[in-house]
Amino acid sequence: MELLEDVKVHGGFQKRYQHDSKVLECPMTFSLFLPDNPQNEALPLTWWLSGLTCNDQNFSTKAAFQEHANYYKMAIAIPDTSPRGESIADSNEWDLGQGAGFYLNASQEPWKHHYQMYDYILEELSKLVIDLLPNFNQQEAIMGHSMGGFGALMIGLKNPERFKSISAFAPISNPSQVPWGRKAFTAYLGEESWDEWDPVYLIKQSTATTPILITQGGADNFYPEQLHEETFIHAAKQSKHPIQYKYEEGYDHSYYMIQTFIKEHLSFHHKYL
Amino acid sequence: MELLEDVKVHGGFQKRYQHDSKVLECPMTFSLFLPDNPQNEALPLTWWLSGLTCNDQNFSTKAAFQEHANYYKMAIAIPDTSPRGESIADSNEWDLGQGAGFYLNASQEPWKHHYQMYDYILEELSKLVIDLLPNFNQQEAIMGHSMGGFGALMIGLKNPERFKSISAFAPISNPSQVPWGRKAFTAYLGEESWDEWDPVYLIKQSTATTPILITQGGADNFYPEQLHEETFIHAAKQSKHPIQYKYEEGYDHSYYMIQTFIKEHLSFHHKYL
Repeated sequence: MELLEDVKVHGGFQKRYQHDSKVLECPMTFSLFLPDNPQNEALPLTWWLSGLTCNDQNFSTKAAFQEHANYYKMAIAIPDTSPRGESIADSNEWDLGQGAGFYLNASQEPWKHHYQMYDYILEELSKLVIDLLPNFNQQEAIMGHSMGGFGALMIGLKNPERFKSISAFAPISNPSQVPWGRKAFTAYLGEESWDEWDPVYLIKQSTATTPILITQGGADNFYPEQLHEETFIHAAKQSKHPIQYKYEEGYDHSYYMIQTFIKEHLSFHHKYL
Repeated sequence: MELLEDVKVHGGFQKRYQHDSKVLECPMTFSLFLPDNPQNEALPLTWWLSGLTCNDQNFSTKAAFQEHANYYKMAIAIPDTSPRGESIADSNEWDLGQGAGFYLNASQEPWKHHYQMYDYILEELSKLVIDLLPNFNQQEAIMGHSMGGFGALMIGLKNPERFKSISAFAPISNPSQVPWGRKAFTAYLGEESWDEWDPVYLIKQSTATTPILITQGGADNFYPEQLHEETFIHAAKQSKHPIQYKYEEGYDHSYYMIQTFIKEHLSFHHKYL
């Protein structure tokens, strides 16, 4: 594993690493923020999953989360959004293939050979990241944006013993029913097993009560066709799952929206970690 | 003039415009942040000048200034760093030509035909920006980073009647004596008139007492060869110019450093506006 970057910001340290992934069979980068921690306190770990077209640097450079993560003494891990490389399957479209891994394990040709982001994050990358924490308190949360908001809801709901809280900005909360999700699920999963990756199905089945916070901008162009979290919120409420949904007038789908509300999300996770 | 972007962030609005510049004889973009201002209070205007290779979007996306500019009710104008376009002179090097205009008026071939950033900002762009302010209180400040830190010191010192305060992150404070500055001055100015563009000379001549704040990171790779503000600080102190110099251990030359200290700079300007 190679340390590519280690930059001081708001008292903490924004790091970036490259490693050879066995699960994905390609070199991968990821970013990790560590707060200033002179007393070597035990720190919780929060995962950030990014949206379509992003890599691990969009969140670290544009979300202005470091001040708050340093204040709350949280480590933040930021994976890439797909396997990468010339020998890796891709499409000519920005919402499928590289940069659009959807955080699941693909079962279909040609994607199944490298697109195993679920196993990569939960097993291989988790071990690497936790080894990099000087003093881990064994508490984890997960959050994300858009495709990564889907990833956070899906991974958090599938692993309630591991993630103490879940949050999402403008998530693709019901991928089986919207164009982005249907396109990705069709390519990566074929016609089967969509339910086990869809947060609406997962929250209906869940007996856990992991607290969830969702922020949605009212001026988000993707809201009507791709996001409209109502089905997910309705399912959560029907199963009496603790959920907060904040609809913020005037905000769009960009990192400006994330920058505005990231403090609120980190404060939310801090309560449970 | 065309509005390219208008995005809500921390209650305010990050806007981006394109216009045809008469001074530079090419289309130019610039960004403008306007705070939330429901009472239509009279607002001051602070200019941000970016560093080498930047355009007007680096600061707006990576500096996380909007929360604080909204809090202090300051408008922030962000010009591009040079004229742009296929028909505009350029070099094969990232520190000369497009993206590296150095905020001066070039006198030498081929640069003198478009590289008139000083006149562009102080005359043409100022009029455009001030027309976009709903209620301007006639107070201005100027700040910048690296090449733009040079620009802020130089423009602020040359125009004390106009700019009430000046600040800079890791500025090229003595361009006549460092490689970046000597290369740019040689190309744009030839062998003459360097003094009138060099902040060290300007502060020695100045009878004004515009307050200045400079932040320099202690882990900035460019510090030893390109920045080392000691000559400028010494000249400022000799002429009893009010100056604060903050040397911040561990911080580098990046927007992570700017993000960390931008609140302090905006608070500084707020006192004088």
